[in-house]
Amino acid sequence: MTAGRLIGVGVGPGDPELMTLKATRALGEADVIAFFAKAGRASHSRAIAAQHVRAGVTELPLNYLVTTELPKCSDEYRRLICDLYDDAAAKIAGHLDAGRAVAVICEGDPLFYGSYMHLHARLAARFPTEIVAGVTGMSGCWSATGTPIAQGDDVFTVLPATLPEKELARRLADADAAVVMKVGPHLPKLRRALKTSGKLPRAIYVERGTMANAKMVLLAAKLDDDAPYFAVVLVPGWEERR
Amino acid sequence: MTAGRLIGVGVGPGDPELMTLKATRALGEADVIAFFAKAGRASHSRAIAAQHVRAGVTELPLNYLVTTELPKCSDEYRRLICDLYDDAAAKIAGHLDAGRAVAVICEGDPLFYGSYMHLHARLAARFPTEIVAGVTGMSGCWSATGTPIAQGDDVFTVLPATLPEKELARRLADADAAVVMKVGPHLPKLRRALKTSGKLPRAIYVERGTMANAKMVLLAAKLDDDAPYFAVVLVPGWEERR
Repeated sequence: MTAGRLIGVGVGPGDPELMTLKATRALGEADVIAFFAKAGRASHSRAIAAQHVRAGVTELPLNYLVTTELPKCSDEYRRLICDLYDDAAAKIAGHLDAGRAVAVICEGDPLFYGSYMHLHARLAARFPTEIVAGVTGMSGCWSATGTPIAQGDDVFTVLPATLPEKELARRLADADAAVVMKVGPHLPKLRRALKTSGKLPRAIYVERGTMANAKMVLLAAKLDDDAPYFAVVLVPGWEERR
Repeated sequence: MTAGRLIGVGVGPGDPELMTLKATRALGEADVIAFFAKAGRASHSRAIAAQHVRAGVTELPLNYLVTTELPKCSDEYRRLICDLYDDAAAKIAGHLDAGRAVAVICEGDPLFYGSYMHLHARLAARFPTEIVAGVTGMSGCWSATGTPIAQGDDVFTVLPATLPEKELARRLADADAAVVMKVGPHLPKLRRALKTSGKLPRAIYVERGTMANAKMVLLAAKLDDDAPYFAVVLVPGWEERR
């Protein structure tokens, strides 16, 4: 019996048309399609890929842990995360041992801030593995707003809004262009850090960048501090230049 | 007569299968397909998209200036760049004024270190404009090497190898994960900066990431300092963690 094959398939930022040709082929060829979903909820990545999931293919939903639920440095968090990914990897390994091709559907790009890499780390040494690169969520956001983000010798940085205010301000001032992720409850702090760094006037707030109900506004013109976890703030480096 | 439409179409990092469904549709619908090429050379982006260029469509090659040819801050460089993009934008505007849909083919993602944004800046205020996000060159590179690049609250940075050595070392030390672009003749300097920052052991050198003749090697194991302009070095932040 031939060994199975693990494929991390990036399905892009949300618009199903932003899937690559390679992703649609990989889903069409897979014996098993796996995806993460919060317990009791529909999987966002599965929804993006829906049109390319073959009728009758084996589907393998995997539990997803939202990383804001516990302090990340706590032993309990680490244990929960490890158990979760160990369990998911074991389920997939069962299919791979049986010679099946398992495609793991990943929002955005599989190896850029994705849960897939926890499976990759556990399985890539034991099984043939392939990655199908995807359009990242941040590309989807700056494309939807038509914002040139970085050019030439710009230094570009991705920052989590979870950083302390001073650290955020220092790093925003130190970069030509930035994307701040995981905005959620950190928006008031992020506003202050952007102001300190002089970047507030050019900051753009984006919710659900490539979805039909996207929301995009200059952050300075957003009057409230409501923001979902997955909102991002774009700080274009390439501004006014030609 | 209806106004024309400008579409910046990302065609991904090189593998034609990493084009999105939306990119192939945009090329199929366009009246004019424009692309940058170095004078006298074939266009790389045109080659990626070749299968999706309709027979008989109007093709519009645009001259591309390699940004290493002159000091970037010189007046001559700025004038040349401006003239080049003014000329390209005028050619495109002619088609847009005639009511045509013009797709500009862009390697990677149109608004991430791409030449397209110079056209966008000149035309977006006058004509309806759409961006088709693409898989970036760097995503193609870390996917080809199977390298998880960033996770969780990692700070991720894109750096041009053109920066001074001390600046490179400082920024490499300050980021969890990094991609260094435009390596070319800067490789010896980059090696020293990686060593100073403690990141040399994990650095991965990549040439032509998603092409059939890709070259990927731990930088510490690369014995020469030969590197083309478009080589990149990946510094994964997510290492050994699970």
